[in-house]
Amino acid sequence: MILEHEPTKQDIIAAQERIKSQIHRTPILTSSLINSIVGCEIYFKCENFQKVGAFKFRGASNAVLSLNKEELQRGVATHSSGNHAAALALAAKMKSVPAYIVMPRTAPEIKKIAVEGYGAKIIYCEPTLQAREEALAKVVDETGATFIHPYNNFSVIAGQATSAKEILEELTDLDYIIPPVGGGGLSSGTCLSAKYFSTKTKVIGAEPKGADDAFKSLIDKKIYPSVNPKTICDGLLTSLGDKTYSILNQNLDKILTASDATIIEAMKLIWERMKIIIEPSSAVTLAVVLENKEKFAGKKIALILSGGNVDLTKLPWL
Amino acid sequence: MILEHEPTKQDIIAAQERIKSQIHRTPILTSSLINSIVGCEIYFKCENFQKVGAFKFRGASNAVLSLNKEELQRGVATHSSGNHAAALALAAKMKSVPAYIVMPRTAPEIKKIAVEGYGAKIIYCEPTLQAREEALAKVVDETGATFIHPYNNFSVIAGQATSAKEILEELTDLDYIIPPVGGGGLSSGTCLSAKYFSTKTKVIGAEPKGADDAFKSLIDKKIYPSVNPKTICDGLLTSLGDKTYSILNQNLDKILTASDATIIEAMKLIWERMKIIIEPSSAVTLAVVLENKEKFAGKKIALILSGGNVDLTKLPWL
Repeated sequence: MILEHEPTKQDIIAAQERIKSQIHRTPILTSSLINSIVGCEIYFKCENFQKVGAFKFRGASNAVLSLNKEELQRGVATHSSGNHAAALALAAKMKSVPAYIVMPRTAPEIKKIAVEGYGAKIIYCEPTLQAREEALAKVVDETGATFIHPYNNFSVIAGQATSAKEILEELTDLDYIIPPVGGGGLSSGTCLSAKYFSTKTKVIGAEPKGADDAFKSLIDKKIYPSVNPKTICDGLLTSLGDKTYSILNQNLDKILTASDATIIEAMKLIWERMKIIIEPSSAVTLAVVLENKEKFAGKKIALILSGGNVDLTKLPWL
Repeated sequence: MILEHEPTKQDIIAAQERIKSQIHRTPILTSSLINSIVGCEIYFKCENFQKVGAFKFRGASNAVLSLNKEELQRGVATHSSGNHAAALALAAKMKSVPAYIVMPRTAPEIKKIAVEGYGAKIIYCEPTLQAREEALAKVVDETGATFIHPYNNFSVIAGQATSAKEILEELTDLDYIIPPVGGGGLSSGTCLSAKYFSTKTKVIGAEPKGADDAFKSLIDKKIYPSVNPKTICDGLLTSLGDKTYSILNQNLDKILTASDATIIEAMKLIWERMKIIIEPSSAVTLAVVLENKEKFAGKKIALILSGGNVDLTKLPWL
């Protein structure tokens, strides 16, 4: 059964227990050179090393592993052209249950191949919200599959929360954890883990200036849809959902935004100095620190590097 | 004092003790996907995460830290346009002693900046062997600095040996360790560690087909100079030295070569699937496995990923 209430402390502990044998406990890396550039102490939580190359596998795994026998037999479905699609496909494959993925025809080839590689059935649709929702409703209707929303789903949120829980098990005196904010799955999970498993750690969201719908939503206390977002952070184009908005509104310290120029600078800095591959959506976390050095001076901060799925022939600095 | 004899077991233990507080103990990573592609069990020793982005910092550190007070005061010198230059510069800086680096005017800008960033004095010369040796002789004569050869130096070899020693501390039943072969510093050190610290592990060198001077040298039992090497592995263009040749000749199981096409394929596979940045010279190790799948079927193999210094605007698949 998918969780029907906001995850409690016990729900997140249960999620961690449920998924731990099938996910990677990702490493936390540091770079003394980057610390000297930003003037604070940074801990990089490497979800780019997670299975399917993104934190999304945590939430998808928790959702799939929360289903009962009958639900499992009917399978799972979602709409996504991104990391959630691959994550759900793999989580389903590991339980040998069907996964139905609704994807716009225009999705990048590399993402289609990844999802197909995990044995999911792809249902292509036109690249509009309406076409996507219709195609999803149809497949759910025909198969009885359980719809696993990419982020506006309490079991998914509880799964994403396990990344911050791991951070807080290793680093007990952090001032801040900074996740990127897209639809709010990772950031709301991070807020809950900080609330339950730390005494002093605040959560600050990082969002691209060109897709700052969550920033505005939290200021005006209502959900703004993400309209024509313009950013290289292809994982952060979505709007908040009612569940993620509610958790963020109650628990997030604030959102900081950064320009794409700084995001690209941060991404290149991490590639060059840490020798790890992260996607632009991960780099927004370091970018907000770079743009707010005085605020963070001397602080101890964990950044969640959310994923590492990049088209290696289309790097933003080329 | 720089070691004047082939490193003994005790010399390598002493090197490890000497450098351990200033180097990174690099992680060993695995990829179940790459294992399934190659049909054997691979352990990646990540020297790309070493300081200055390459194993070279081990040997340079051991050499610098082996000098006595008077030698240290006069500083160290070398000729190199590559990772050894940066490594020696940083090792010298950490002991606050001068480093003199002879570099061809044609060296990549990124390497010059790295070496200057570590506070070394660069002496530019024409890109010929003669000009390089003359410039080095002059600076050694003028300053009394100790010449630290990039690989044909027993203290450097003992330092490089510590990477394989770390591997063998974690993995006791490896069939093979495969380092890349350039001048032979890393590969000869690896051979010595395998001899001293394992009972069954053999060492196989990996060399690009377009720079197979070491392969030929070991077959014909004489050192062939590397003449007009043609490969993207810019760290593997050098010839063996008498010291490295002698150790390899006595201890290396064999050298396998791989084409640049396979090296690029291996490099991209590691970037895409492991989300880590390695330079082409590191990828030759996986490339020889890809070209010899039957030989390695079912074996347990450590590959030494020697470095991660890549010009991110000039990737070989673009």
